[in-house]
Amino acid sequence: MRALVFDQKLSFDPAYPEPVPGPGEALVRVLKAGICNTDLEIVQGYMGFKGILGHEFVGLVQGGEWDGKRVAGEINLACGNCETCHQGISTQCPNRATLGIFNHNGAFADYLTLPQANLRLLPDEISDEQAVFIEPLAAALQILHMTHISPHHRVVVLGAGKLGLLAAQVIALQGCHLSVVVHHLHQNELLSEWGIDVAVFESIEPKSIDVVVDCTGTEEGFADALTLVRPRGIIHLKSTYHAKPVADMTRVVVDEVTVTSSRCGPFDAAIRLLKRYLIEVEPLIDARYSLDHGLDAMVKAGQKGVLKVLLEMG
Amino acid sequence: MRALVFDQKLSFDPAYPEPVPGPGEALVRVLKAGICNTDLEIVQGYMGFKGILGHEFVGLVQGGEWDGKRVAGEINLACGNCETCHQGISTQCPNRATLGIFNHNGAFADYLTLPQANLRLLPDEISDEQAVFIEPLAAALQILHMTHISPHHRVVVLGAGKLGLLAAQVIALQGCHLSVVVHHLHQNELLSEWGIDVAVFESIEPKSIDVVVDCTGTEEGFADALTLVRPRGIIHLKSTYHAKPVADMTRVVVDEVTVTSSRCGPFDAAIRLLKRYLIEVEPLIDARYSLDHGLDAMVKAGQKGVLKVLLEMG
Repeated sequence: MRALVFDQKLSFDPAYPEPVPGPGEALVRVLKAGICNTDLEIVQGYMGFKGILGHEFVGLVQGGEWDGKRVAGEINLACGNCETCHQGISTQCPNRATLGIFNHNGAFADYLTLPQANLRLLPDEISDEQAVFIEPLAAALQILHMTHISPHHRVVVLGAGKLGLLAAQVIALQGCHLSVVVHHLHQNELLSEWGIDVAVFESIEPKSIDVVVDCTGTEEGFADALTLVRPRGIIHLKSTYHAKPVADMTRVVVDEVTVTSSRCGPFDAAIRLLKRYLIEVEPLIDARYSLDHGLDAMVKAGQKGVLKVLLEMG
Repeated sequence: MRALVFDQKLSFDPAYPEPVPGPGEALVRVLKAGICNTDLEIVQGYMGFKGILGHEFVGLVQGGEWDGKRVAGEINLACGNCETCHQGISTQCPNRATLGIFNHNGAFADYLTLPQANLRLLPDEISDEQAVFIEPLAAALQILHMTHISPHHRVVVLGAGKLGLLAAQVIALQGCHLSVVVHHLHQNELLSEWGIDVAVFESIEPKSIDVVVDCTGTEEGFADALTLVRPRGIIHLKSTYHAKPVADMTRVVVDEVTVTSSRCGPFDAAIRLLKRYLIEVEPLIDARYSLDHGLDAMVKAGQKGVLKVLLEMG
């Protein structure tokens, strides 16, 4: 099968061996997949991963009880037997593999395998392209699990990239006073169409914000968040950093700031919101490439200001 | 002016004295007002109130800086000088009066007065009829301030009356797994149109629900909530009871259940969600009456299964 493989360098392999599902696993034919910043970071050495990239996908189950069904899939392959799994926090299982990120081949290929329990059936209301966004939308929703955002709160989202635009949309559903700090005109227009306020960083009063969500993925993002957050406020980190951000932790302590963060989130909730069309994902798609041109797609996805790039297997 | 007045019994007065705004107060010509369950309870003796009923309204400011502007108004008249006000919790001020509920004449009249600080300007996107729902929608949003509802949660709303239908809509925006227990066919249809699940009480597994929101206003509501809530779960009370509900508090303690509640909420958040049309309120209007027929309107509003009844001053 065709596959986009990283092993010290990224290459397109037209004849990679098809995966064979293990016990309890399903074989899935991938229809479409999305390129995430994590994929770009892996290519720069993050996680030391070797294998097929990709963890945002929609596909069709091949064989078994769900033969032919259209699915998305949770990306963490938990052991199910450790204390963390027994507490129901399988996304944090210390023995886990992660689709296309750690110890398990990913979705930038014609086929992938996942435990049957990771698969989620998709309702007809959700298109294939929308379905590719279930994984990142679930990650955006996890912000709301880890941090209580009240309708009374003043909230700022820093960074309006792929994840920032999803985060902004789910936070706006809370009714809270939300501003998004944006650096690109296109994102500015999108947010305005959605009725979400756009702000210039300098226009926001320092120490005035209840919850600052940092989606910048940069060291400066954390420093900016510290500037804006009110005493006893919350900074929620929604970025992976491939460099270690150096933070003024004294300010954090003196102002009793809480720093929270989140990673993978609830697929079911993402499906419910997409099904009701409460989150708009189509305008986030900047380009579509055949898997054959996956290398070009990765280059495109890495360009400044580019939002979601999709890979099409069909 | 015309007014619907309660003093031991409810009467329509065609020549009630017009109110005179005090220092810092604005005079407002009422355009439309909504009848709330609280109004029905006051007529049955709740709060021992005497005066003009009504606290859900849209109106036009008469005179002053905002002359001619269209407004809604927060209903709590706080003293601004006590410890509770200094903590920013003016809705809980122990010295407060409350529009049409306690010590301050309400909105079922041609004119009312409110402190200028209580008024909220309305954007053009919000119609007069929508604006009448800002107060109850704010109250529904206060659920989310007092109780953290995560996208992972299983939530049940008991009771789909006027407030229950607003509560269901704001909770559904969280993406959580929500079911609403409904007793009337009309509400059932509305919820289904919105894509919100309807459930029969008996079909829900006992002790399985993370957050149960009781909007029934009945003693049975609390008992039902206790049946459904999981150990360490939350019961959120969103009802005023004119009888004292007798509750099995032993179950609460044994299962470490948290009981929270909420009353008035954030007008700004309600305005933001209505402006983006994320909450649909028009289908909740069951009847419209001229203020002249206010007594009939109150009878209608008290009938079983009837949702919002509006009074029109025009």
